[in-house]
Amino acid sequence: MVRRVICVLAGGVGAARLLAGLVRVVPPAEITVVGNVGDDLVLHGLHISPDLDTITYTLADQVDPDRGWGLRDETWQAMDMVGRYGGVAWFNLGDRDLGTHLYRTHRLSEGATLSEVTAEVVAAWELGFRLLPVTDDPIRTRVTVVDPDAEREVGFQEWFVQRRHDVAVRALRFAGVEEASPAPGVLEAILEADAVVVAPSNPLVSIGPLLAVAGVEDAVRSVRDKVVAVSPIVAGAALKGPADQLMTDLGHEATVVGVARLYADLAGTLVIDEADAALVGAVEAEGMRALATPTVMSTPDVAAELGRTLLGAVDVAP
Amino acid sequence: MVRRVICVLAGGVGAARLLAGLVRVVPPAEITVVGNVGDDLVLHGLHISPDLDTITYTLADQVDPDRGWGLRDETWQAMDMVGRYGGVAWFNLGDRDLGTHLYRTHRLSEGATLSEVTAEVVAAWELGFRLLPVTDDPIRTRVTVVDPDAEREVGFQEWFVQRRHDVAVRALRFAGVEEASPAPGVLEAILEADAVVVAPSNPLVSIGPLLAVAGVEDAVRSVRDKVVAVSPIVAGAALKGPADQLMTDLGHEATVVGVARLYADLAGTLVIDEADAALVGAVEAEGMRALATPTVMSTPDVAAELGRTLLGAVDVAP
Repeated sequence: MVRRVICVLAGGVGAARLLAGLVRVVPPAEITVVGNVGDDLVLHGLHISPDLDTITYTLADQVDPDRGWGLRDETWQAMDMVGRYGGVAWFNLGDRDLGTHLYRTHRLSEGATLSEVTAEVVAAWELGFRLLPVTDDPIRTRVTVVDPDAEREVGFQEWFVQRRHDVAVRALRFAGVEEASPAPGVLEAILEADAVVVAPSNPLVSIGPLLAVAGVEDAVRSVRDKVVAVSPIVAGAALKGPADQLMTDLGHEATVVGVARLYADLAGTLVIDEADAALVGAVEAEGMRALATPTVMSTPDVAAELGRTLLGAVDVAP
Repeated sequence: MVRRVICVLAGGVGAARLLAGLVRVVPPAEITVVGNVGDDLVLHGLHISPDLDTITYTLADQVDPDRGWGLRDETWQAMDMVGRYGGVAWFNLGDRDLGTHLYRTHRLSEGATLSEVTAEVVAAWELGFRLLPVTDDPIRTRVTVVDPDAEREVGFQEWFVQRRHDVAVRALRFAGVEEASPAPGVLEAILEADAVVVAPSNPLVSIGPLLAVAGVEDAVRSVRDKVVAVSPIVAGAALKGPADQLMTDLGHEATVVGVARLYADLAGTLVIDEADAALVGAVEAEGMRALATPTVMSTPDVAAELGRTLLGAVDVAP
């Protein structure tokens, strides 16, 4: 039996949910995930990769089912102490989560690449798929926000977490991306894929950093017919996070049509939610095929069915 | 009322116990502790200062009363995760303890000195005394150990914790000490002290790094009459830790007489345990006054009484 390659371009939570469905449909060994590292940060001396960890923890079934984020059985003793000292507490790090960051930071200090450490973490959770950071080089998403009086550039997490993305955005850039090379295997995974799935992640700050790394956007464009994207915008709003507001702030239409304009060069098909079925024609007017189907992944069953639809859209049998 | 200065040259556990007694005898505001940083380490990207933290945690009444080390109400979730990844787990870091290291590492990365961070940590616990690292510069105790076949130099904690100091030692050095300056206030605290107390810490690896910093040994020697040291060796053995074995390995006699030879130039008085009362004459033959008194600080009352004896020895009224 020939092993297929399903390549998923991924951000955080939305991508993780899709992957949780996809692994019910195809063998995990057939899946290569290319993950975002633009929202990585170094805090308290630790290298934190939020999107990679969200994928790992979700697929390892370690996410707290009640909160919907963070780890099961998590405790907050370290952050309580940081708080006692008046330290930086806006980026909440649970004790279990810290263990991942301690391990990653130590391995990086030994000279391991982020790819290598990520593979080790995924192996420890016995996940079976490949998770590749898009690059082993440091790239950092920087956000120009409008303070009451002046514009100011802040780190992604300062905008996203500390300021709860509750401030108008003027510009984005991915610092360091000019010097970044794709991590080993990234371009091959795209070019050799039977299907490239663009997860329902934020097109600008989750998928954007992937495409900004040298060669990635060209690779995706070169296999456009095998590329199927899922709109993170449903009925004019982001299911989670600030994608809608951010698209509006940066001059894009916060609808599936706006998403289609961002992806038309890269993906042959855009999958939109059934709530947007009336916009199939408008999406196709942007030069993409449109498929309307349930995309709100309220259960793993819905996610699995979405996975089947995505593979079917590019003629890959589940 | 004139505020006195009681300066304590301190290692870890033994010094912390003595300080817990001393603060019952004199106002904490009169005490300046000069602490050892030779066994500091950077692990998992975090700056860890074991001796400074042992003092802080002990005086803050945060040490676990059953284990006798580590923090009360400590949990080990982060290290469990590190273990899952097969990471470095020989240096055990509790979740609460990690909070201190996260805070310290972050402040240092902002450009704060170790003195400044240490003062902030001590203030957060409302301890009332001054705790000064002997230097803000990095010094690292390095230990040449005898492996079965060859000599090898390792970091202090690799010898002390990872190898449980269960290997012969050939040499010690304090890497970086040539470039290290005393932290602000250290020399003044010694020179202006009404009493300088050398805690019952390991003379070679706890007090040794303090004396090796430029100017410190000279300062102590210049106030020798006000200096009183407590022997960490009782009846030929260290109460805690490897001081006896280490002294023997490095050619010193592991008795109060051996301690006297190390300190005779620096301290006018050596306080020895009543168990060694028969050696008062032998100590005084080394050129120090000797006082035999209970030094095994099994309770804070014993420690307080020892504190009174130390101050009395240099004519400071408690």
